[in-house]
Amino acid sequence: MGARIEPRTLKGFRDTMPAEAAARNTMFRAIEAVFESFGYGPIDTPALEYEEVLRGKGGDESDKQMFAFDDQGGRRVALRFDLTVPLARFVAEHQNALAFPFRRYHIGPVWRGERPQKGRYREFVQCDADLIGAVGPAADAEILTMYARVFGALGVEGFVIRVNDRRILNGLLEANGVLEQAAPVLRALDKWDKVGREGVAQELRDAGLPPAAVEGVLAFPGCAGADDAATLAALERIVGATARGREGVDGLRATMRLVAAAGVPAAQVRVDPTIARGLDYYTGVVFEAALPSATGFGSMGGGGRYDDLASLYTNTKLPGVGCSVGLTRLLVALEEQGKLASAAAARSVLVTHPESGDPTASIALAAAVRREGFLVETFPEPKKHGAQMKFADKKGLRFALTVEPAGGVHGKDLRTGEAFDVRDAAGAADEMRRRA
Amino acid sequence: MGARIEPRTLKGFRDTMPAEAAARNTMFRAIEAVFESFGYGPIDTPALEYEEVLRGKGGDESDKQMFAFDDQGGRRVALRFDLTVPLARFVAEHQNALAFPFRRYHIGPVWRGERPQKGRYREFVQCDADLIGAVGPAADAEILTMYARVFGALGVEGFVIRVNDRRILNGLLEANGVLEQAAPVLRALDKWDKVGREGVAQELRDAGLPPAAVEGVLAFPGCAGADDAATLAALERIVGATARGREGVDGLRATMRLVAAAGVPAAQVRVDPTIARGLDYYTGVVFEAALPSATGFGSMGGGGRYDDLASLYTNTKLPGVGCSVGLTRLLVALEEQGKLASAAAARSVLVTHPESGDPTASIALAAAVRREGFLVETFPEPKKHGAQMKFADKKGLRFALTVEPAGGVHGKDLRTGEAFDVRDAAGAADEMRRRA
Repeated sequence: MGARIEPRTLKGFRDTMPAEAAARNTMFRAIEAVFESFGYGPIDTPALEYEEVLRGKGGDESDKQMFAFDDQGGRRVALRFDLTVPLARFVAEHQNALAFPFRRYHIGPVWRGERPQKGRYREFVQCDADLIGAVGPAADAEILTMYARVFGALGVEGFVIRVNDRRILNGLLEANGVLEQAAPVLRALDKWDKVGREGVAQELRDAGLPPAAVEGVLAFPGCAGADDAATLAALERIVGATARGREGVDGLRATMRLVAAAGVPAAQVRVDPTIARGLDYYTGVVFEAALPSATGFGSMGGGGRYDDLASLYTNTKLPGVGCSVGLTRLLVALEEQGKLASAAAARSVLVTHPESGDPTASIALAAAVRREGFLVETFPEPKKHGAQMKFADKKGLRFALTVEPAGGVHGKDLRTGEAFDVRDAAGAADEMRRRA
Repeated sequence: MGARIEPRTLKGFRDTMPAEAAARNTMFRAIEAVFESFGYGPIDTPALEYEEVLRGKGGDESDKQMFAFDDQGGRRVALRFDLTVPLARFVAEHQNALAFPFRRYHIGPVWRGERPQKGRYREFVQCDADLIGAVGPAADAEILTMYARVFGALGVEGFVIRVNDRRILNGLLEANGVLEQAAPVLRALDKWDKVGREGVAQELRDAGLPPAAVEGVLAFPGCAGADDAATLAALERIVGATARGREGVDGLRATMRLVAAAGVPAAQVRVDPTIARGLDYYTGVVFEAALPSATGFGSMGGGGRYDDLASLYTNTKLPGVGCSVGLTRLLVALEEQGKLASAAAARSVLVTHPESGDPTASIALAAAVRREGFLVETFPEPKKHGAQMKFADKKGLRFALTVEPAGGVHGKDLRTGEAFDVRDAAGAADEMRRRA
C-alpha cells in the first residue's frame, strides 16, 4: 500500500453534513411542492456542456470563472455556471417536444471558480423556475404569486417581494434624457437600500449625468406611497408622458391586480421603485425577495421578465418570466427565525442492543416502532449500555428504548431525561407521540 | 450578435425531461423515506475532488474513465466516479465530528468517461447507504432489512435479495485448495445465472483449476435447498471443516434470523450460493437484488460488508456494510410493472384564460382549486379556447376548468372526454376528486 493521502476537500468546496443536508432537503421539498402546485415540472441537464454552449453567455466574469477543460475525446467542455444558459439550450434543443407555455423548475449544483470568501463557494445549488413562451400580466402575476407562496410555505416571517418594471425605469431614463446611460443609472438605483440617497446621487454625478437628470432620477425612488395604488399613481406622474413608461405602469397595475386576485396578501408583494436588478437582462417586470425587518440582510433571490431566452441557439423567439430562490440566504433566514426545527428529530429513536446475548427482541421492537412512523435505529453491536446512550446523545436522537430482560420496554425521553416503562411497541409509540 | 450555436448535449450526456424527472424524484423520495426510517441521514460531497483523492481507488478502469483536469489555480482535480471513494474521504476527514456507528445515504450524480452504449451514460445518479463502524449480524441484518424495505416500498413485484457470505466462499476455496485463485473463481461463480454450470466449469478449467477442484466448486452453487435452513445446512456440510467457512455459515444464519425478526418475508431475502460479487472488495455478507421472474433482467443493485473503508486516508479502522440501489434497472422494472403511474397526474388541472378580456375570475378560481390540493396551471394569455385545450392535451393534464361568463364553472375530464358544470371552485374540486 502506498503512502496515506490527506483526506481534504478542494479550496472553495465543502461537504454537507447530515443535519444540514436534511434541513436543505426539507426546504427543497417545500419549494418543489409549491412549484408543482402551479404546474411546473422538474428537469435536469448535464453538469458538463460543450464549452461553446456556455462561453460568452454569462458575461466576462462567468467566462473567467468557468471550469473548462479538454475531455478524453479532445472535446472542449465546461461545468455549467448557472441553470439559465442550460435552460436556453434545453428549450432550443427540445422545442418540438415541449408544450408551450413551458413551465419548468430546476434545482441543481453549479460551479464557478471565483475567489472563495466567507459564505461563498465554488460549488453551490441554484433553484430556478421559469414560464417560457407567454407574455402579459397573467404570466407575470403567476410568477410573483408562486414566488410569494414559496416564502409563505417555508414560514418566512416578514418577507416582501419588491416589484418594479424595467419599462417604467426606461420611461424614467427617457423622461430625463439619459436612456443611453441605462446601465450606470440602474446600477446606482439598485444601491439605494445600501448607500442611500446621497450615495446614489454621487454615483449618478460620477456617471456624468447633468444636475437636472440627477435630480429627476433621485425623485424616483422616493415616490413610493402608502400603498401600491399611490405608488403606481406617483410613478405614472413621473413617467406617464413616455410610451414605454405608460406601458410599464399599466402592465404593473394589471399584474398587481391579478396577484391580489390569487389571494396573495398585499403586504407580501409591494411595488417598489428602487428595484432595478441593474446587471441583468430583464425587459419587463423585475422583483426581489427581501426581509425589510432584518437590516442589511440582502435579497433572498429575485427574477423578472426577459424578451428572448434562447436567441443564441434558435430563431424561435421565446419570451419568458422566471424567478430564482437564493437558497443560502433563505437558509440563514429560516435558521434565524427558528423555522428549521426538524419534525423528524421528534420522531428519532434508538433501540439499544443487549450488552450481551441475542438482539432478536430488540430488532423486532425496532421494526414494530418503525411501522408506527418513527425513525428507528438499533445499536448494531453488543456494547455497554452507557456507550449506546452516549451515541444517542451525540447524534441528537429524541428517545431511547430498551427491551427489559423480564419483558416490557424501558424508555427514555432524551430531551427531558424522563424515563417511562411500557408494555410493548404500541405502548412505546403512544408514549413517544404524546411527548413529541 | 455572433453566429448561432447548435443547441446540443455532449456525447454520453442527456437531458431529463419533466415526466421522467418527476418519476425519478418520486422514486428518490420513497427510497429516502425508507433510509431515514432506519436512522440514515443524507450527506453531500463535492462533485470535484483533488485527483489524488480519487486516482487509484477504483481500479485501472476508473482511472482511465475519470474526468480529470487542471483547475484555474493549477490544482489537479477530477469529477467523482462513484460515491464510495468520496465517502471514505468524508469519514476520514470528519471522523471526530461524526457519531459512530455512522449511518449515511447519498444520492447524487457521478461521472465516467466510458464508451457510451445503449442505456449507459457518462453522467448517472448513484444511490448508496452505508453503516460504518459496526460489525456483526445485527449490522448486516439491518442493511438487508432496509434493502428489502426499499424495493417493497416502491411496490416492486417479485423481487428477491439474494444473499451469500464471502467467508463461506473463502471456505469453499480453502476446502478445494484454490484460495490463491479467489478472483477468477468468484468471477466465474458470478456468471452461474448467465452461462450455467457448463460455462462456469469451462471458465474454472481455463483458470487452471485441477479437475477435482472444478468438481468441488461446481457442487457449491447447486447446493441450494428448499429453504434457507436447508441451504445453510448444505453449505455447512461443504465448508464447515474450515474455520472461515464455519464462521461464515454461523454469521449468515444469525443474520437471516434477525432479518426474519424484523418482519421481512422469507421470500424477499434468500440465501443463494451463486452470489459472489467477484470484482468487489467485500469480506463478509454479499447480496444482490434480483427479479427472478424476469429472465436476463440483471441485478437492481447490491452490496456487502467490507473490512476497512478508509485505510488510504486514515489509521482508524472503519469496517462497514452498505448497499447500492441500481436506479436505472429499478426504473425499468417499475415502468414495466406499471408502478410509475403518477398520483400527481390525476390532480393536474388547466384553468383556461378568457379568449379576450379580464382573467381575474380565472386566476381566483385557479388559486381556490390549488388550495384544495390540486396542481393548477392557468393559461397565461388570451388565446383561442381550442389552442388552450390542445396545450392541456399535449401536456397530459387531467382536467380543464373554464369560468363561464354568466357565472359558474365548466369542467372537462380530459381522460374520459366528459364535461361537467359546477357552481364554484369547491364544486369543481369535489367533482374532480370523485373522478380522480
